[in-house]
Amino acid sequence: MRVRNKPWAKDYLANHPDHLVSQPETLKGNWQSRFPQDQPIGVEIGTGMGQFIVEMAREHPERNFVGIEIQESVVATALRKVVDSGLTNVQMVHTDGEAVNTFFAPGEVSALYLNFSDPWPKKRHTKRRLTSPIFLAHYQDVLASGGQLQFKTDNRGLFEYSLQGLNNFPMVFDGVWLDLHQATDDVEDIQTEYEQKFSAKGPIYQVIAHFPESTN
Amino acid sequence: MRVRNKPWAKDYLANHPDHLVSQPETLKGNWQSRFPQDQPIGVEIGTGMGQFIVEMAREHPERNFVGIEIQESVVATALRKVVDSGLTNVQMVHTDGEAVNTFFAPGEVSALYLNFSDPWPKKRHTKRRLTSPIFLAHYQDVLASGGQLQFKTDNRGLFEYSLQGLNNFPMVFDGVWLDLHQATDDVEDIQTEYEQKFSAKGPIYQVIAHFPESTN
Repeated sequence: MRVRNKPWAKDYLANHPDHLVSQPETLKGNWQSRFPQDQPIGVEIGTGMGQFIVEMAREHPERNFVGIEIQESVVATALRKVVDSGLTNVQMVHTDGEAVNTFFAPGEVSALYLNFSDPWPKKRHTKRRLTSPIFLAHYQDVLASGGQLQFKTDNRGLFEYSLQGLNNFPMVFDGVWLDLHQATDDVEDIQTEYEQKFSAKGPIYQVIAHFPESTN
Repeated sequence: MRVRNKPWAKDYLANHPDHLVSQPETLKGNWQSRFPQDQPIGVEIGTGMGQFIVEMAREHPERNFVGIEIQESVVATALRKVVDSGLTNVQMVHTDGEAVNTFFAPGEVSALYLNFSDPWPKKRHTKRRLTSPIFLAHYQDVLASGGQLQFKTDNRGLFEYSLQGLNNFPMVFDGVWLDLHQATDDVEDIQTEYEQKFSAKGPIYQVIAHFPESTN
């Protein structure tokens, strides 16, 4: 997502240390200290303008949420949504979500959310896709036993790649939706800003999967 | 597929024993005896009017093919295509393809094709879907090591079910296409009559997968 520079962003980030984590590595194994309640943590990598994570936090007061976003102007917009919401079960992180396994201890994350991640369509950029095997290994590091990865996109090529990649890793599919907004089951669908704006152009794809139990 | 009764069908089937197998169980382990060349066998379950299997046989003289279809009028149409083609590497079977493991010996089949299988959309009919775990177990019985199952459909619900079911079985995905006719890779796409007629209404989905090596 490309957005205009927001002149207020830097100051806004600096002025909200209660809701924004600037050095996530220092919280590894100790994330519950950032929340009033000790409860399962869901992490969104690439949280964009924040609608998804804030709505999830509102819908699920029984869980904690962490939104990670690298772009300053974007994370500032998300942070403002968090602050304005008054919710205490969501924290923002201004950094690159790729290194998620350096921020969280093994098993510290109960669910991971990837929403409309950059498709990196060129073959030579395959490794940058957030569903590439390198990143899946990071997710496996931090997810608790049975913890789910939920991946949503409108990009057909990225979804084809991801279905095969998750299967090959291997991950176990808990559900696949090839047109989420037409789904007839009772799947929860908290929408992102991007999703609301662009879904009319084509189907939204989603897969929910978990890593098999270790046999070690 | 529902078709009109064809008065000529019964006689036509009776008059072409060289191209039609009526008791497939008797050939178990001995299917190569039906072909001039001993070469890998591909099997289509529910072969419909036969365009796919005949075109595959024409494109791949280095393989043998068996098409299985239960409806008399439909198999008669397919059989006529086979006879008229002059091809010697394709045989038709007039029976229910569900019991494929009673027709073929372990490892006797190199590839399995399911094209536009009945979606059986009702929950209580789930077990009748040709990608249900019961049938996958049959396919595993007959497929040679590394042999692929190729499944193509225009039915979104059936494809969602099948992606999850194949993954959970488990099978290993070799490729997933969510709009086969828009594919930019060099995937082979031999089309069925149904596919040519109905694909304008929506995307054609395809998955190709194989069973993992046995660890026994």
